[in-house]
Amino acid sequence: MAAGYYAFERTEPACFELWIRELPISRGYAIAAGLDQVLDHLEGLHFDKDEINYLRQLPALASAPAAFFDEYLPKFRFEGEVWAIPEGEPVFGMEPLLQVIACLPEAQLVETALLSTVLFQSMVATKARRIVQAAEGRPVMEFGARRAHGGEAGKLGARAAFIGGCSGTSQLECGMEFGVPVSGTMAHSWVMTHETERDAFHRYTELYGGTSVLLVDSYDTLSALRMIVSEQLSPSAIRLDSGDLVQLSRESRRILDAGGQQKVKIIASGDLDEYRISDLVAAGAPIDAFGVGSALSTCPDASSLPGVYKLVEIVRNGRRVPTAKYSPQKVTLPGRKQVWRNYRDDIVAYDVLGLADEPTPDGGVPLLECVMKQGRRLKASDSIRTVQERSRRSVERLSAGVRTLRGPDRFDVRLSPGLTKLTRTVHHQITKRT
Amino acid sequence: MAAGYYAFERTEPACFELWIRELPISRGYAIAAGLDQVLDHLEGLHFDKDEINYLRQLPALASAPAAFFDEYLPKFRFEGEVWAIPEGEPVFGMEPLLQVIACLPEAQLVETALLSTVLFQSMVATKARRIVQAAEGRPVMEFGARRAHGGEAGKLGARAAFIGGCSGTSQLECGMEFGVPVSGTMAHSWVMTHETERDAFHRYTELYGGTSVLLVDSYDTLSALRMIVSEQLSPSAIRLDSGDLVQLSRESRRILDAGGQQKVKIIASGDLDEYRISDLVAAGAPIDAFGVGSALSTCPDASSLPGVYKLVEIVRNGRRVPTAKYSPQKVTLPGRKQVWRNYRDDIVAYDVLGLADEPTPDGGVPLLECVMKQGRRLKASDSIRTVQERSRRSVERLSAGVRTLRGPDRFDVRLSPGLTKLTRTVHHQITKRT
Repeated sequence: MAAGYYAFERTEPACFELWIRELPISRGYAIAAGLDQVLDHLEGLHFDKDEINYLRQLPALASAPAAFFDEYLPKFRFEGEVWAIPEGEPVFGMEPLLQVIACLPEAQLVETALLSTVLFQSMVATKARRIVQAAEGRPVMEFGARRAHGGEAGKLGARAAFIGGCSGTSQLECGMEFGVPVSGTMAHSWVMTHETERDAFHRYTELYGGTSVLLVDSYDTLSALRMIVSEQLSPSAIRLDSGDLVQLSRESRRILDAGGQQKVKIIASGDLDEYRISDLVAAGAPIDAFGVGSALSTCPDASSLPGVYKLVEIVRNGRRVPTAKYSPQKVTLPGRKQVWRNYRDDIVAYDVLGLADEPTPDGGVPLLECVMKQGRRLKASDSIRTVQERSRRSVERLSAGVRTLRGPDRFDVRLSPGLTKLTRTVHHQITKRT
Repeated sequence: MAAGYYAFERTEPACFELWIRELPISRGYAIAAGLDQVLDHLEGLHFDKDEINYLRQLPALASAPAAFFDEYLPKFRFEGEVWAIPEGEPVFGMEPLLQVIACLPEAQLVETALLSTVLFQSMVATKARRIVQAAEGRPVMEFGARRAHGGEAGKLGARAAFIGGCSGTSQLECGMEFGVPVSGTMAHSWVMTHETERDAFHRYTELYGGTSVLLVDSYDTLSALRMIVSEQLSPSAIRLDSGDLVQLSRESRRILDAGGQQKVKIIASGDLDEYRISDLVAAGAPIDAFGVGSALSTCPDASSLPGVYKLVEIVRNGRRVPTAKYSPQKVTLPGRKQVWRNYRDDIVAYDVLGLADEPTPDGGVPLLECVMKQGRRLKASDSIRTVQERSRRSVERLSAGVRTLRGPDRFDVRLSPGLTKLTRTVHHQITKRT
């Protein structure tokens, strides 16, 4: 398509918006995430010689103009403008998270990268926020890298999980690149490489002292705990990774306390998600922290967010022309937009989805802000802790019904008068001319 | 853990195996994929100065010996041996896809990378094989990159989808790096940037001629088709992306045929997976090819394979010691293994999971082969077409019950006498000493 736009000299400015069509039924909100990687991508985007030569020989591009490969692609840089809802903010179906205003081929070329970056991280950040909510103040560590969809997904998933409120990750690259706190515990192999579990635990605490977390379920959990107590190993925590976690955590607590090891914490892991954690918390299991893996990195109950990137406006003969499509069940709203958040008693009451050039509705706070002009960031990235804190505060201001984990209320997104009218007009025009 | 092994001079050889604990209930088999990226990773693995400095300052590693950072990590290279089931082969629960024999810290350090690489690609290749089966000979194009978990997942997911039988992908990096055929169709934006759909289609066919695929559902599908016919546009195909695909494909075919455009093919897309495609095929919908997106790149019905990487053998005082763990519901089998496939009338009858040094069972064909020694590949990678062909042929030799899409039979994996005996012995020893 980019070659086509170039061939017909269609380099007029266009506006594309990226939004989640509809939230998965189990989600009352989504957390916007991934913007920082989007801006990195746009700032660095270019085509090197090998890439251009590869494209040139593709049969599908045999009729593209030679100048597309010789002149356009070698000089290609993203030089557009980007508006975005800040990372960490809750968003809802239909609301643009990202707005790209650039000449047509540029805005088009970046579609796939923008969608996969924003949707993946938003999916994980949302899941993390739910899991952290279920844990009711107990720390949640992200352990999902080994089931993530490759190394990059492991690293960026851990970043998104931190935005969503996790306390840290076991993914070291994420720690190094983004300053996310890292921590880990021993794996079963540590125990299995030693002649006895007793040797394994002694060696580990000998080296790592009071920061040791001992994994106690390799053979028999309660025997392991009794041994920890009788040997007075005093690790920082023990980790339960299998079995009935309510019962095991109670018995573990009892054994530790009876042996004078009240300070040793209990960490639980093993196929946990927000539902299992909220059940454990409700049952009063004496668990101090959770480790969560695949539920965070792959979100089995909503393994992708149904996001799209669509043209909403194009400049034709110097005039801004709003556009929309009317495919069955996949209608889009025309025009460049803004989202205004509206509060009542410091709780988010509803959002107004309107046209960017409409006046701000009374009391509405605009969410989309300009973050890039002429292909350059307008300011340095927020620190990951700032984004995490924004996410925490903003979700706290959602109503309990929207935040609830099971059967959340549908949040009220209202169309502005201007957008309602424009949608009707554009539909009418399209119906007339087709 | 690696620092711990180093601190206690635990650099004896160990054997770890990677396997899928149990196949998701809807899957009769999985397709092994990702080995080529595993070997790339192992050949290139090293720690640069910045990485080592980052690790050195981590509070969790404060008590690790200085020589770990000063001597061990700077010189670190993977120098072990790897055995693997070739990419493309069907595998079953409990069967090691990968075996790493290396000194303990080396074998341990690679765990996360190996798991995420193999499990993700195997998940996608398996899904692709099922979707291709449902399509009954009609080509399936991979369109999943925009919903993939980031750019790397988009590229490697497309690779795995090709292994699983897809005809090509819209992900250009995958085409460039692995030689997978690429193709695409217009998006809705192409139509929306033009004043009328008629202009949009004319321009596209003008440029791309007989290879054009026209997306016809932007406004009204059947009007678009009648216009294609009346304008005699003769694209290569039209694409339906929404609505009732059975009915729309029938009406589209009728309109195209009546207009003398019998050669124009019909491609269907829009939230398709193996179940929807098999329903479309069963309903006799005149669809010539399918485009599949998120179902391939994110596998909503089995968004990760429950794979693990566990120690099965360690050399202690010069003696090979088989190891296992006995966590509730997470028992592992001790010892270094081999998988022998057994055929009856050229159909796979059962596999034998046994110890690597047991004699080959009568008629059994060993699946695990040595692919890396001293950290170097033993041969060049198979071409992606070779792997795709292997996968096609090998799945054809599975029984219909194992291959079926809904409620597949559980494939028969038998434990060898040697492995059965060893499992009992090791369990007994561990029970005795803990």
